[in-house]
Parts: sequence; C-alpha cells; structure tokens
Amino acid sequence: MNKIYEPKPNTWAAILERPTKTVDDIELTVKEIFKEVQKKGDEAVAKYTSVFDGVLVENLEVSEQEIKSAVAAVPTQLKEAIQLAKSNIEKFHVAQKTAKIEVETVAGVQCWQEKRPIQKIGLYIPGGTAPLFSTVLMLAVPATIAGCKEIVLCSPPDKNGSINSAILYAAQLCGVTKILKVGGIQAIAGMTFGTQTIPKVYKIFGPGNQYVTVAKQLATQFGVAIDMPAGPSELLVMADATAVPAFVASDLLSQAEHGMDSQVILVSTSKKMMDAVEEEIQMQLELLPRKAIAEKAIANSKLIFVENDTIALDLINEYGPEHFIVCAANEAFYTNGIENAGSVFIGNYTPESAGDYASGTNHTLPTNGYAKNYSGVNLDSFMKSMTFQKISEKGIQNIGNAIEIMAEAEGLQAHKNAVTLRLKSLE
Amino acid sequence: MNKIYEPKPNTWAAILERPTKTVDDIELTVKEIFKEVQKKGDEAVAKYTSVFDGVLVENLEVSEQEIKSAVAAVPTQLKEAIQLAKSNIEKFHVAQKTAKIEVETVAGVQCWQEKRPIQKIGLYIPGGTAPLFSTVLMLAVPATIAGCKEIVLCSPPDKNGSINSAILYAAQLCGVTKILKVGGIQAIAGMTFGTQTIPKVYKIFGPGNQYVTVAKQLATQFGVAIDMPAGPSELLVMADATAVPAFVASDLLSQAEHGMDSQVILVSTSKKMMDAVEEEIQMQLELLPRKAIAEKAIANSKLIFVENDTIALDLINEYGPEHFIVCAANEAFYTNGIENAGSVFIGNYTPESAGDYASGTNHTLPTNGYAKNYSGVNLDSFMKSMTFQKISEKGIQNIGNAIEIMAEAEGLQAHKNAVTLRLKSLE
Repeated sequence: MNKIYEPKPNTWAAILERPTKTVDDIELTVKEIFKEVQKKGDEAVAKYTSVFDGVLVENLEVSEQEIKSAVAAVPTQLKEAIQLAKSNIEKFHVAQKTAKIEVETVAGVQCWQEKRPIQKIGLYIPGGTAPLFSTVLMLAVPATIAGCKEIVLCSPPDKNGSINSAILYAAQLCGVTKILKVGGIQAIAGMTFGTQTIPKVYKIFGPGNQYVTVAKQLATQFGVAIDMPAGPSELLVMADATAVPAFVASDLLSQAEHGMDSQVILVSTSKKMMDAVEEEIQMQLELLPRKAIAEKAIANSKLIFVENDTIALDLINEYGPEHFIVCAANEAFYTNGIENAGSVFIGNYTPESAGDYASGTNHTLPTNGYAKNYSGVNLDSFMKSMTFQKISEKGIQNIGNAIEIMAEAEGLQAHKNAVTLRLKSLE
Repeated sequence: MNKIYEPKPNTWAAILERPTKTVDDIELTVKEIFKEVQKKGDEAVAKYTSVFDGVLVENLEVSEQEIKSAVAAVPTQLKEAIQLAKSNIEKFHVAQKTAKIEVETVAGVQCWQEKRPIQKIGLYIPGGTAPLFSTVLMLAVPATIAGCKEIVLCSPPDKNGSINSAILYAAQLCGVTKILKVGGIQAIAGMTFGTQTIPKVYKIFGPGNQYVTVAKQLATQFGVAIDMPAGPSELLVMADATAVPAFVASDLLSQAEHGMDSQVILVSTSKKMMDAVEEEIQMQLELLPRKAIAEKAIANSKLIFVENDTIALDLINEYGPEHFIVCAANEAFYTNGIENAGSVFIGNYTPESAGDYASGTNHTLPTNGYAKNYSGVNLDSFMKSMTFQKISEKGIQNIGNAIEIMAEAEGLQAHKNAVTLRLKSLE
C-alpha cells in the first residue's frame, strides 16, 4: 500500500493516474474476426468458439430443455436471493420511468418529448470462473421495463458446451428473449452484423475482458451503440475518524479481489484511521480465497491523508470514482458536493456489495474517470428520447417570421421558403 | 428523383441504404494533428489554423471588445428572432429537468438517482458560408440550464481572423464562458487534450465536416465523450392524399439544400400526391440560390409509393429518419407507432424549419439510422445520472443474507465478507 500525506493539488493527477493499456495488437485480431463473422456468419462463430472456448457447439441457441434443467439445478436459497435482488432492481428502475414532457412554447406551437425503447438489444455476460448472473439482472431487468422487444444474451459455453445454470435461471426470470452460447469477440461481432442464428442488435451492454472491450469499441464503427467504454473496476472510500476500520478494509478488499488491475483508494482526514485500515487489510487479506489477486491490487492501492473535508472532496471530484463510499461525520457535505462518481454509498452499513447485488441500484457504472461524462446504466440506457411538434396555423404565424429571418441569415433560402409558402397560404 | 412503387419488404434495406464513406485516408491526417496538438499545444493549433484557415491568429480567445462589436453589428431584427428562438428552446429544455428519484426498495435500504451537470463541455460550430448561430442556441441553452460550469465554444476564424457576428452574439447571449477562434481537427484536438489557451473538456458537441467528424470519433479514444456519431442530414416525409404538395416539396427542398449528400425521401399512399410533389419540386428548385446543391440531392431522392399506412410505418421504422414529417389523415397512427426517428413534425403547418430554428425542440439529431439507438440532444445530454444509497442497520439485516448468497455463488468471497462483518457486528 502506498501511503501519501497531504499531497499538493498539482500532484493529484499523477497520484490518481489510472494504468493505461495499449490495445494495438488486440485490435488486429478483433478486426480479423469481425471481418470473418460478417462474411461467414455462424460458420466463423463456430470456428472461433472452437479456438477460444475449446468446444464444438452444435446448436448455438440454448434450448427450452436446457433452460428447464438449469432452473431445476439452481439451489432454492440462491433462487430466493436472486428474486429479492430482482424485485429491488425492478422497484428502483421502474421509478425511473419518465412521463411525456409537453410544452406549448408559443401559442399554437406544441412540442413534446417521449422516450421509446430501443427495439433490439444485446447483453454480453462473461463466462469463466465467476458466473456473473448478477449482471444479467442489472441489464435484463431495466431492458424489460423499458419495453425492448428483442433482448439477446450471449455468454461463452464451458468445456461441455453449457452456460452456467444461474445465468440461465436469471435470464429466463428477467425476460431475455434469446440465449446464445457464444462468447468473446465472435459474440460481439455476431450481434453487430447478425448471423443465421445470432440476431443483429442496435445496442450492446455488458462487461468483458479486454478482447470484448475492444470488440465493443469496434462495433460502434458499424452503427451499433454500446453502454459505455470499459476499464478496470474502482473504489474510492472516504473515511474520517468516525468510520469502522474493519468495514472499510472489507470494502477495499472486495474491490481488490475483482482483478489485479482493480483500483483501490482510501482518502482520510485521520492518520489513525488510515493506519487502522491498513492493519485490518493485512489481517483480512490472509483469509481470502482470491488472496493472490487481491494482494496485487492492494499493493498498488493508495491511502491518502488530506487535511480536511474540502480538500478531500476536491481530490475525489478530480478522480471521479466508479464506486464512492463515504463514511464521514459530515456525509451531507460529500453527497451534496460530489460532481463525478458512478454510484455513492453512504454510511457504515452500506457496503459496495449491496449495490453490486441486491439494493436495487445498477452495478454497471462508468470506470476510468468516465464518471465525469457518462451515466451508469439506468432505465434511459435502454430507450432513446424523441421529440415531436405540431404547429397550428396560428402557431406558424407566431414564429414564422423569426424562422424566415434566421434561415435567411444562415443562407438557407429553401428553409425560409418552407415557411413563406405556408404563411402566404394563410394570408 | 427515383420513383418506386410498392417495393417488397425484402428490398427495403437496399432502397433505403445510405451512402457510406471510407474515412481511412482522413484518419491518418487526424491522428497526426492530434499528436502534434497534444505535444505542442497552442503552437500546433496556430500552425494548422494557418494551413487550413489561411490566417494567422494572434490571440485565440475572442476578446470582450470583439464580442461588443459583434453585438452591435447584428441587425435588431435578427437579434429579436434569435431571442424568440432562445426563449422557446429554454422553455422546452427547462421542462426536461427531472427531480431526484428516491425509492426505499426494502425497509432501511434507501436508493436514489440524481442528475448532475457535466462540468466542462465544448461546442464546435462550423464556419464557412453558413454561420450556424442556430446551433449555438441548440447547444449552449441546454448546457446553461443543466448547470455546466465551463462552456467552451470553438469556431474557425475567417480570412480576417474573425468569427461571424451572429455566432458571437448568440454565444454571449446563451452563457458560453469562453470563445476560441479555432476550427477543424485542431479545435477538437485542443478541447481533447487542453492547450495553454484551449481548456480540456469532458464532452464535445456540434456538427462539422468529415474531418471534424473523424476527429470527434478519435477524441473518444482519449476519454472525451461526444454528442453522437454524425452523418449527412436526412428527411423523410409521409404524405397521403390530404397533404399539400407545395408544402411537402418545400420541406424536401429545405433538406436537399443542406448538401449534395443529404437524404430526401417521400413515402406516400397516393400516386397522385407523389406526382404533384415531384412537379412542385421542379418548379421551386428553379428559384433556389443553392439550386446546384439541392439538385444533386434531389436527383438521389426517393419517392416511394406504398399500399397503406401499415406498410408505410414499417418502412419508416426500418429507415429511422433523423427528421420525420407526417402529413396524413391518420396522423395518430404514425405518432403512436413510430419507433425510430429523431424528431417528428406533424401536420401541414409544421415544416422542418420550425424545429431547425425556433419552435423549441433541439435540432441536433441522430442521422444515418442512429435514431434506432441514440437520442437527439436534450437536457440530459449535458448531465450524467448518478445513484446514491444509504442502508441502515435494519436495512443491511434485511438484504445482507441475499448478498452473501449471491456473492458466494459468484465466487467473490471478499464481497460476502463486507456484509458478514457488518451483520456480525449487529448480532
């Protein structure tokens, strides 16, 4: 752990710098596979599934029977936990529905805004050791609430050609319309171009390794939207003297176990707290099954002592953390003043894990400083806002002249004509 | 004009295909200039301003004095038109403000969503023959309502090193905090990296030529967000027998005058209407100052006759037009059923020009089929949504066990520990 005391503001950028990766060599591979999937469809998908996942999948689409077996295989206790999480995520995202916004800006000029669902969306759920069924909930629940017609889920098959049961259980529970055994670059390419089996979608959501990340970026060049750019997961905890060191340490470690490149930062106005958290981390770390991973992330972590809350808040806003836990006497100062953060966790009994799984908020959040310019996934991520206007004869008479003058000043005569003709017809 | 009768659905994609451009050769230039601006700042900006705009600009920033002169130079009539437009745009975008959304998902688990402004934004306004002061309104007005702290505007200088007066007038009227005489790739690079004079911003908005478009795409690789991917402007008009041919023709022409690559489509359930519109277009075209441009766009335009409203709507949704005018007896059928469109204009007295300038809706809209997955610019484009949660002791007891079970099932023991420790402390 790196302990830093009262760093000067002009050193913050360097201290808070995130590791950057070059992706040039990956890009070539991704482009190649995109080309081949575009050209050969399912044949190319099968080939790369065999290469990367080491399995020949006969039928890409998960069958009714497989879903039934998966539902039967998930322990009741886990089902109940997933159902509770689903219910909370539903409550929070249903509340995000917005009504039509209607304004008569001038008499006879009726303008309104409505949100309509993106018709076809794709969800990518990684496979491997950690089956992220929680991400299925976080994406499929709001997609269903939004009213997306096609919700396609891609996840890589294991060596037996299967997808983890909990993922399948969550998918059928949350309204996914098609589940496909395909992962990695070939899955993103498949959803970008469409193949015989994989539907082409308009927007792709979900996490993944660096191949998936680069593939999602490339997909945007072919007209597909993505949820947000991705980077390693991050947590910044602000803990003053009122925090509980053991809790803070457990939160930092829960971030650290994600990956060796996880970003873990503690900001404190108490040196005593900082030392106590450090000690707790060492103790708790020993007991973790993913100790090897967490240890590496912790070695790169930063414990930063600052003089007061104002400096702390400035530094946190400069960083723009994905997850921000605040355990401080003056918590309102932080919640009111935070400008850049994905999701904010307040108080001693609000661990990041709660938001990761079951409290109801979404866990797909902007990393890598993107909290400065991107929203986390929310109901609106699955919709687009459209505007409408209806102008009456009176209305065009009220604003027509202004339009004519502006169009003329911009040198766009035909724009002016479209109004002039209408005004003349009303004379 | 290409007249097409009752095309089969399997031919729609080909008929509605938009022209694609290869940008490979532009990309190299853009990358070079980005590198140089990143390294040399203002020096590189000045160099490329000299190369591309043919002028040596001593002071990049527009001075108070220049703004004063510009304000004095704009004719009163135009000022009043701009003020009316601003007032309507304000009314419509202020109405888009959303309240904090707060839900207690389970007793003791308080979750809420708030939107906060993106702190630093950049607006790009093209120079050249058509001074797009209307776009200043469309971007700066909602940015100010959102509460963005820094609103930087870049626009290329003319041969005298000046920016068009109407652009400067609109900028100072709408709360732009800094105006810079810089255009093209070097402007986008400057706002991406920051230079001695140009502030680094978090999100860049605004239209531009293909160099600007590619530069904005490249900016996203350096952590900057952009409003949306760009393409040539488009208009699709649905006109049944109740439409007014002269009005429809004037709307199609107002789209056509934008550029030779503008997309102009008429869909009709009346062959008579189609013929009448065609005739009107020929007549009105003769009188346009931008006839040469409009003529080319019209030559590529499509007039499509379909059997009935249902087929028309399906075809329109497949296309996903940026601007969609509907002049039809059964207009509710279209406004209710439209899934993919940037902005919808309803009835005979609602020309696209109204939304381009003064009705109050935003004119920065998704082109190139992006209406399927992107919103037009709206108040939320200048904000990001953040979530907050505060869990009480009772709250964590209510959902703690579900989190433990899910974290364990995903193999994330430290996530579980963060909850277990807290639950134990409450025993």
